[in-house]
Amino acid sequence: MRSVLAGFAFFSLLAGLPVLAAERDTLYQVSAIDGLMVGLYDGVTTIGELRTHGDFGIGTFHGLDGEMLVLDGTVFQIPADGKVRQVADSATTPFASVSFFESEQILQLAGLDQAGLTRALDQRIGTDNIPYAVRMEGQFKRVRTRSVPRQTPPYAPLAEVAKKQSVFEFETVRGVMVGYRLPSLMGRINVPGYHLHFITDDHTAGGHVLDFEVAAVTVALDALPHFRMVLPTTEAFRAADLRRDRAAELKKVEQ
Amino acid sequence: MRSVLAGFAFFSLLAGLPVLAAERDTLYQVSAIDGLMVGLYDGVTTIGELRTHGDFGIGTFHGLDGEMLVLDGTVFQIPADGKVRQVADSATTPFASVSFFESEQILQLAGLDQAGLTRALDQRIGTDNIPYAVRMEGQFKRVRTRSVPRQTPPYAPLAEVAKKQSVFEFETVRGVMVGYRLPSLMGRINVPGYHLHFITDDHTAGGHVLDFEVAAVTVALDALPHFRMVLPTTEAFRAADLRRDRAAELKKVEQ
Repeated sequence: MRSVLAGFAFFSLLAGLPVLAAERDTLYQVSAIDGLMVGLYDGVTTIGELRTHGDFGIGTFHGLDGEMLVLDGTVFQIPADGKVRQVADSATTPFASVSFFESEQILQLAGLDQAGLTRALDQRIGTDNIPYAVRMEGQFKRVRTRSVPRQTPPYAPLAEVAKKQSVFEFETVRGVMVGYRLPSLMGRINVPGYHLHFITDDHTAGGHVLDFEVAAVTVALDALPHFRMVLPTTEAFRAADLRRDRAAELKKVEQ
Repeated sequence: MRSVLAGFAFFSLLAGLPVLAAERDTLYQVSAIDGLMVGLYDGVTTIGELRTHGDFGIGTFHGLDGEMLVLDGTVFQIPADGKVRQVADSATTPFASVSFFESEQILQLAGLDQAGLTRALDQRIGTDNIPYAVRMEGQFKRVRTRSVPRQTPPYAPLAEVAKKQSVFEFETVRGVMVGYRLPSLMGRINVPGYHLHFITDDHTAGGHVLDFEVAAVTVALDALPHFRMVLPTTEAFRAADLRRDRAAELKKVEQ
């Protein structure tokens, strides 16, 4: 698969097309959220491979070692100790979602809490049924984030690990939120509704967003009607019991 | 998207690769089953386009005009009147799943009812979490199928239309069953478990499989860990209320 895509990228260059133009409007996903829920934390795709499918996105790392945020092609790791670092292409991920971000709609919003802001975005997006990438940049009155500590096998389920999460509080901070708003019908595959990660403008702190209030932000939206998911062919993924709907459990973990 | 893929196919030919090798091991899907459940029956993708993503598969047609079966690159329509016809590339589909079939595992099975046969396949596949294409060819003791009558707007939900389905009974018949076994976690996007369509060896009859008993068949399996879904950007799809999980309703319609 990789060599074929490399060939395609090469052809695109020859033809003067943007590299990987075929993946425009595509949300590319490694594994499924229900795999992460049951503790499938071993990395299955390299960051180098992931970056060929998007320059923007969110996820986590091998061993559930912190929150992933991909912005303008750079992959950041926000571990439980809070110290942000850039990630090498040789690192791996058990679960991530990326896309090539193209701003299609822009909103300027000010003085809203999380509920007010998501209502404003819901109204602009106008559908629950198409995935959207969300990029929100500017001044935040406050942001509360979390990150998860690196795990070692045998892995505990995500709901257990989330009890040991680090929580970070920011006040009057500039930064960027990166993530997706996904349809209800993708609920067992990814996180339905809004799922945002945050990084400060100086790239020193951030995490998985739990709550926030914006001072003044610019929100850019990108509709992604094409969806690609690559499921792991590992024995651990094949053997996992993913038959049960874990919607309620997921809601607790994500919020 | 189409022109880019055409370019890719062209490049593949130049390089001596099979055309569309990038789509190997990929289940390609038009729209989501929950769209069909609520009556989104207008075609959104042409059969010509669909055929660039697979030579094998199942689905339906514009206006819910019968059952689709794709076998060795030929697209068959099995309408409610039971008279099978081949479909022009200009026809359209509101929902379909296709793949390039490559036989990875082969089983010879005889003297089994539907429950016994699916148990045998479940055991061989050994996981609920990876999509599999299933091709089952040979002698059937009996097959019961259905097809659905063409609808006109305003469209009734699928559960209503299914009440008016035609049912066909076959005894001692040779033919092919074509379809997929999909993970539970794809339940709102497609049909979880087995979803098979049938066509007789002489291509004169068939339908969506309700029940069967095999005399002696050859079953070929093809794992499809890559999944691509193209959601419609139509106003009808954007406006549809797909927030509710329709698993119980779907089970009634499919069986």
